[in-house]
Amino acid sequence: MNISEARNIIVQFIADYVGNSGADGLVVGLSGGLDSSVSAALAVEAIGAERILAVILPCGSTDPKSVEDAKKIAKHLGLEFVIYDIVEAVDVIASACDATDNRIRYGNIAARVRMIHLYDISAELNRLVLGTGNRTEALLGYTTLWGDMACAFTPLGGLLKTQERRLAEEIGLPKWIIEKAPSAGLWRGQTDEGELGITYEMADKILYAIFDLNKIPNELVAEGFPQESVELVLRLYQKSSFKRRMPVYPELQGLPL
Amino acid sequence: MNISEARNIIVQFIADYVGNSGADGLVVGLSGGLDSSVSAALAVEAIGAERILAVILPCGSTDPKSVEDAKKIAKHLGLEFVIYDIVEAVDVIASACDATDNRIRYGNIAARVRMIHLYDISAELNRLVLGTGNRTEALLGYTTLWGDMACAFTPLGGLLKTQERRLAEEIGLPKWIIEKAPSAGLWRGQTDEGELGITYEMADKILYAIFDLNKIPNELVAEGFPQESVELVLRLYQKSSFKRRMPVYPELQGLPL
Repeated sequence: MNISEARNIIVQFIADYVGNSGADGLVVGLSGGLDSSVSAALAVEAIGAERILAVILPCGSTDPKSVEDAKKIAKHLGLEFVIYDIVEAVDVIASACDATDNRIRYGNIAARVRMIHLYDISAELNRLVLGTGNRTEALLGYTTLWGDMACAFTPLGGLLKTQERRLAEEIGLPKWIIEKAPSAGLWRGQTDEGELGITYEMADKILYAIFDLNKIPNELVAEGFPQESVELVLRLYQKSSFKRRMPVYPELQGLPL
Repeated sequence: MNISEARNIIVQFIADYVGNSGADGLVVGLSGGLDSSVSAALAVEAIGAERILAVILPCGSTDPKSVEDAKKIAKHLGLEFVIYDIVEAVDVIASACDATDNRIRYGNIAARVRMIHLYDISAELNRLVLGTGNRTEALLGYTTLWGDMACAFTPLGGLLKTQERRLAEEIGLPKWIIEKAPSAGLWRGQTDEGELGITYEMADKILYAIFDLNKIPNELVAEGFPQESVELVLRLYQKSSFKRRMPVYPELQGLPL
């Protein structure tokens, strides 16, 4: 499979999913980053821009450039867009929880308030929420549970970040968005790679070797991968398993009604 | 299996899950209804009341009796509890979304704001969020996606509502909570059975026949179940499949890095 075939599979998946759902279209949160831009671009190919609403959800003035970038992408793709600043709601909740000074907890509250907005708009318009996560984020657990991971489906869920960048070039997205440093936008100056402690390029090589080539960690180290990087990726994967499944429960087979 | 054996399995499940997680305990949202009361009671048996925080999250003055009932249950179980009124946050979001006059959308926003509070408290305290849903709700999709269904695990996830009531009697919970009309508390006077259009007793009989006895719908009708009830249960089950799984995505096996 090459990247062009992957693109066709994803576009068909989106068209089929929306078609079978009975929904009138999609809503997508645009952050001004690559993940949401590529996801939206593929959705436009699948069902057309007129059935997609872009929603831009800044949290105060943390990152005015991202709002501008999100608008630029919406215009580039021909998408209608709306902007809601979520800062008031986030501050009310963070104050009640005494979480205002904790940037991780504050960022998670913001990611979950965005989910609430997207789901409410999707209910109002009888549309589905388009997910924007990729496979690297899912495997590393680099996502807010019930926040940015909450959606109907993720077009990029089968693509590692490195593959996603190749797909963005194939689609012909502007160079500035492909080369922008990935950031969850949780606080000013935050970058994914700084927070994760590893580059996406290295993480993807390790994830690909483990999950697609079925290699074991010792083999990777023997092949020259830095041991601390292999261990970091494995640790992130293992401790985030709860983010990749629905809540569990004890089965009680054989209990009479 | 009888209800006493089911109780032991659930209590062991809770103790094992919390023990293996590395968390310091649990937080549970108490609504003043039966589901959260039984879930919390089983958690107390499993790990002790001192490692569980009850969180009561009213939305304005919609239902003052439920707050009092939740407090009574917390005291009955020996649980420390805190109360946060979420109405300000819910109103800010509902206003921004123009959803204030739509009770379904307003109720879903409230359920999701509760999730944000519970997850923030769980992060602050290094505890897990105890889920309070049961199997009937899950199979009928009678839950707010990314709202009340969001948790680490659901002790009652394998129990139909009818079985849950039997378990509540076995545990020795007060009669008033077992006999209280089930309500998601989405608006004043709301009852689950009124909104679903079927009693839990009838729904459970149909769900049990289909999922535990592997009967087909025609058999049920031949046995005397009302056809419209069988069709309602099947319709609710089928249209809620998206609430019982993680977001889906196209697999892209064989795509090189």
